[in-house]
Amino acid sequence: MASINILKFGVSSPADTTPLKKLKAAGYEAKDILGVVGKSEGNGCVNDFSRTLSTHVWEPLIPESAITIFSGGTEGVLSPHVTFIVKESEPTGLQAVVGRTRMLEPHEIGTSAHAQEVASSIRALLQQSGISKDHVHLVLIKCPLLTSSKVEIIKAASKTPVTTDTYESMAKSRYASAVGIAVALDEIEEDNLEAAMQSEDCWSSKASCSSGAELEDNHILILASNPSLGTLRAASTYMDDAIDAGAILRTLEQVKRENGEVLQVFAKAEADPTGSIRGKRHTMNTDSDIHSTRHARAAVGGLIAGLAGDPQVYISGGAEGQGPPGGGSLCVIYRVET
Amino acid sequence: MASINILKFGVSSPADTTPLKKLKAAGYEAKDILGVVGKSEGNGCVNDFSRTLSTHVWEPLIPESAITIFSGGTEGVLSPHVTFIVKESEPTGLQAVVGRTRMLEPHEIGTSAHAQEVASSIRALLQQSGISKDHVHLVLIKCPLLTSSKVEIIKAASKTPVTTDTYESMAKSRYASAVGIAVALDEIEEDNLEAAMQSEDCWSSKASCSSGAELEDNHILILASNPSLGTLRAASTYMDDAIDAGAILRTLEQVKRENGEVLQVFAKAEADPTGSIRGKRHTMNTDSDIHSTRHARAAVGGLIAGLAGDPQVYISGGAEGQGPPGGGSLCVIYRVET
Amino acid sequence: MASINILKFGVSSPADTTPLKKLKAAGYEAKDILGVVGKSEGNGCVNDFSRTLSTHVWEPLIPESAITIFSGGTEGVLSPHVTFIVKESEPTGLQAVVGRTRMLEPHEIGTSAHAQEVASSIRALLQQSGISKDHVHLVLIKCPLLTSSKVEIIKAASKTPVTTDTYESMAKSRYASAVGIAVALDEIEEDNLEAAMQSEDCWSSKASCSSGAELEDNHILILASNPSLGTLRAASTYMDDAIDAGAILRTLEQVKRENGEVLQVFAKAEADPTGSIRGKRHTMNTDSDIHSTRHARAAVGGLIAGLAGDPQVYISGGAEGQGPPGGGSLCVIYRVET
Amino acid sequence: MASINILKFGVSSPADTTPLKKLKAAGYEAKDILGVVGKSEGNGCVNDFSRTLSTHVWEPLIPESAITIFSGGTEGVLSPHVTFIVKESEPTGLQAVVGRTRMLEPHEIGTSAHAQEVASSIRALLQQSGISKDHVHLVLIKCPLLTSSKVEIIKAASKTPVTTDTYESMAKSRYASAVGIAVALDEIEEDNLEAAMQSEDCWSSKASCSSGAELEDNHILILASNPSLGTLRAASTYMDDAIDAGAILRTLEQVKRENGEVLQVFAKAEADPTGSIRGKRHTMNTDSDIHSTRHARAAVGGLIAGLAGDPQVYISGGAEGQGPPGGGSLCVIYRVET
Repeated sequence: MASINILKFGVSSPADTTPLKKLKAAGYEAKDILGVVGKSEGNGCVNDFSRTLSTHVWEPLIPESAITIFSGGTEGVLSPHVTFIVKESEPTGLQAVVGRTRMLEPHEIGTSAHAQEVASSIRALLQQSGISKDHVHLVLIKCPLLTSSKVEIIKAASKTPVTTDTYESMAKSRYASAVGIAVALDEIEEDNLEAAMQSEDCWSSKASCSSGAELEDNHILILASNPSLGTLRAASTYMDDAIDAGAILRTLEQVKRENGEVLQVFAKAEADPTGSIRGKRHTMNTDSDIHSTRHARAAVGGLIAGLAGDPQVYISGGAEGQGPPGGGSLCVIYRVET
Repeated sequence: MASINILKFGVSSPADTTPLKKLKAAGYEAKDILGVVGKSEGNGCVNDFSRTLSTHVWEPLIPESAITIFSGGTEGVLSPHVTFIVKESEPTGLQAVVGRTRMLEPHEIGTSAHAQEVASSIRALLQQSGISKDHVHLVLIKCPLLTSSKVEIIKAASKTPVTTDTYESMAKSRYASAVGIAVALDEIEEDNLEAAMQSEDCWSSKASCSSGAELEDNHILILASNPSLGTLRAASTYMDDAIDAGAILRTLEQVKRENGEVLQVFAKAEADPTGSIRGKRHTMNTDSDIHSTRHARAAVGGLIAGLAGDPQVYISGGAEGQGPPGGGSLCVIYRVET
Repeated sequence: MASINILKFGVSSPADTTPLKKLKAAGYEAKDILGVVGKSEGNGCVNDFSRTLSTHVWEPLIPESAITIFSGGTEGVLSPHVTFIVKESEPTGLQAVVGRTRMLEPHEIGTSAHAQEVASSIRALLQQSGISKDHVHLVLIKCPLLTSSKVEIIKAASKTPVTTDTYESMAKSRYASAVGIAVALDEIEEDNLEAAMQSEDCWSSKASCSSGAELEDNHILILASNPSLGTLRAASTYMDDAIDAGAILRTLEQVKRENGEVLQVFAKAEADPTGSIRGKRHTMNTDSDIHSTRHARAAVGGLIAGLAGDPQVYISGGAEGQGPPGGGSLCVIYRVET
Repeated sequence: MASINILKFGVSSPADTTPLKKLKAAGYEAKDILGVVGKSEGNGCVNDFSRTLSTHVWEPLIPESAITIFSGGTEGVLSPHVTFIVKESEPTGLQAVVGRTRMLEPHEIGTSAHAQEVASSIRALLQQSGISKDHVHLVLIKCPLLTSSKVEIIKAASKTPVTTDTYESMAKSRYASAVGIAVALDEIEEDNLEAAMQSEDCWSSKASCSSGAELEDNHILILASNPSLGTLRAASTYMDDAIDAGAILRTLEQVKRENGEVLQVFAKAEADPTGSIRGKRHTMNTDSDIHSTRHARAAVGGLIAGLAGDPQVYISGGAEGQGPPGGGSLCVIYRVET
């Protein structure tokens, strides 16, 4: 089985691994760790070395089979932290399984091959873990991006990169990962994968993908909830746009009705690609000083941290395929009173 | 009398003056304008030329006695717009008066002399307009800052600038303006003005100050509410920190109880100077790529726009003396059903 | 005839028009102005309102037929200034003609239609002014870009924008303008215009193009030198890469040999698209905090200002089609002793 | 004795340690390493995690007594690289010694205590190594800065931080280190250390200091040249301002006269604090999007890389006390033909 618990701790810097001590104080061992999901304080873009640093200090401390997913960018009120996904021997109501795809060739990043690889890896993980597709509330993926060097490697091999713009490659990679998730969860039919890759507007409400220069495969973490098995639960939905307070409030009210306590919020954020929100022009896509993913994280982070009363939430920028355009997927993990 | 109405329109760029047409379509003339209060889409910092551009295009179109207050920075979901304060012949419930201090000498910016000048100008405006101090809900001020040239002028005159850091001079100027407001509204005793200037932690919950390179005096706009006189109202309070959703929700619920419709929200935002919010570390003060005022506007803007369901809100960064440290003043203008 | 002089003055801000007084003190009138070419201190990217502000304050002061070309970005040691191109009644050795293309439709920006329009406008200007193609040393163009709103307009009309990335549209617009120049100057055969637009690596060593949101047509300024006619001269070449000090030193030595004094330097700069310079990796294309055009202006500006001993030089970022990839066009205007 | 050689290699990322292989291929062992001096590709400011990452990957690979000095910021054409300082058994003409001060208490950073600690450590290192003060050409120091957390620790202890602005603390720390160097090298009399700390305009032409969050002591590397002992040499001087091409050209000409080949250039750069260079206004101190140290590195890096024909040069930003105001120290290491 794949029963898990979730524990969250602040970090003093991207190199801070003291949360491991706190995890141990809470009764767990490093070997129990399935995954470390963190928000680190870089720009969340191509040259974010805070993610690499965090990955670098954490990987030697956790089992080889465990995965790390560091999402850069703690703009605004967001607070750097790590969330541990740890194995439990008894059912808790929450289940998880983690894995990796094979290494992608540089020219595959952001393409149908990338999406296909993600889809088949997720299916294999679900099968191997016995987690039901219907119980899945969140699939977190850390995926690779194109650096200048990778673009040159692709060109040298007479192949075509999905884009030559390194920042844009992050979006392409996230979208391919999200399409892979949607196919694996039957939100998109497998036959439509190619079409979905062309269209740029298919989406999964369970997907949360984040790209980085610090890896060449895809790290996958699947979270599922089976309320009949324990007191830990997940509720998921999506924000329709970046100011969709309603979606958040409704989810938090559900938690409250069940006498629950929020353990963590996972949300995706993006600048509406049309350039406006509810008919009002925003400037995130024309600000040449700050990339739109940073703006989006700051704004949605402010909204969710405010409503949750907690700045240690996982808000990740760039929601291509992860919730409707301009909006984003939303998943709340909580514990109910017994 | 000083009865007013408030109308808000989006702009397509900092040079867009088409809202004047919309104002006319709504039955007003340029001569009715007391003030134009806008959010423009620059960085809101020292080299924000969007503010200067907006000031430049608007000043020739409005009465000489009218004032402009452009606050730079529409980070995240915030939408560039202008709010007109227009005179009404009949009582509306809302009152306003606008004015200017004298030009400040560069070496006075951010000092007690600055605060004193603001205080005495506000008192004179209240007296001349017959607005009661007790009805005041908001004092908006646009105040000057120090550029490299002004710092050199001060040094050449063998005087001492309040700081040689041009970005920091914005904070000093806002604080001096806020202390002036607090003194004028009896939130601080006049005898304590000097001490307040030293302490850096006195504050007014009615103050909203914003600094810019585009002026050398202080522009002042005082908004007051007398519900017995009409259907327009103001409610003001303060956010205790940057994620104080409660303060916003309570104010919006008051509006709802009165069957009111929100016309505009004015709020100040800042990065908590201690480096943490509710005990969780934030990174706004250590991010050398994005100034903390930009972060704070994006986050608080996300929260308020989300709860108000409107990205055209006036969120201004740098709340020194304008609400408690790490929080900020908050004022909602609304119209009730008759 | 089209004889001209060149005068250069510093500005204290993008709104500073006092150089007009200095021009008058030098014996010229506003009506003598053919063009105002300036470096303004914004980010030189999509949301650079310093350019718009400068355009806004200067256009009412100069003849309707005169043009403005403001290039944003005075990174590093570069100093904000304006260069006047003024008519002279007597031959000076330097000639110029200015003009505009028609307004471009949003969907034409950065396309072959754009290049074609530039080419035919330049040809018409050369013919009407009697300037010989062989004497041309520099064609300065200010061209439009795509904002979020323009992208939406194009999509609403069921047309396809050249790109949906507003920053990238600046590069596309510059390249189309440069191809137009190359065609007009016979550096590219007209029949090859379409192929040149596809290839992305054709270039003119006389082209200097800069894009901005402040216009919808293309402003064109052609500078020519005929040493037999006077003491003002132009020398032009290109930098092979961004550290090609040799090209600059050789040009300055030519000036010195002729007992000349440099009046102004016009150069283009860009981040080498391969990601390296002389085999050494640079990070301009992977820095998500600062766009590569800003980096390139700062670096090449440092080199040229250092060698010329003058920070008031015109260095413009984004050299697509304006000199070899990674390098840029270079033109020095100077006066020789008689 | 302390004879050394210098070898320089590019890196593909801040985590790249493959230069160690190249060092070995050149005949050296890790145990020969005295110091690793690198340029890493972060912002060079408070939240530069590229420095921390580089330090993190390199420290386990080098002797415990060896030091690392990573200077963040490869703006413009600058290329990320590491320079090894390796011990030689035979005299080479170049000498070096490395060491550390004690850990500084947070409240000591940037104060006279800091300067004093640096001065006494340098003296001890010179004495222990037998290097003559007169042969010293460069003292490289990596020094600590104040983070938000350190500022809070200082306040909690009822002490006063040298500044509460984390970015400004970098400048204060560099200045204290530079004053320490000047005192140790008799450029400033020890009795005048306090006065020098007050004045802010004392300087050493041998100092190159860089601050970072990744350490709490000061790393010191002293480089000396004794041409009588071999073919490796150092020439040092200072740039008088950021466009002082003359200082660079004169030094490179000296190398050429000696039939030398440049191995590395070490230079400091800063934005002239007066806001102008040779009477022309610059905008580095009023740009709220890019810190002045980034601008200065890009510009001076462009000039030096251009003249040296090499983008792998060590240009470090923030030259307080390291060369005259607005200029910076300059040291060229070269090998002459025998």
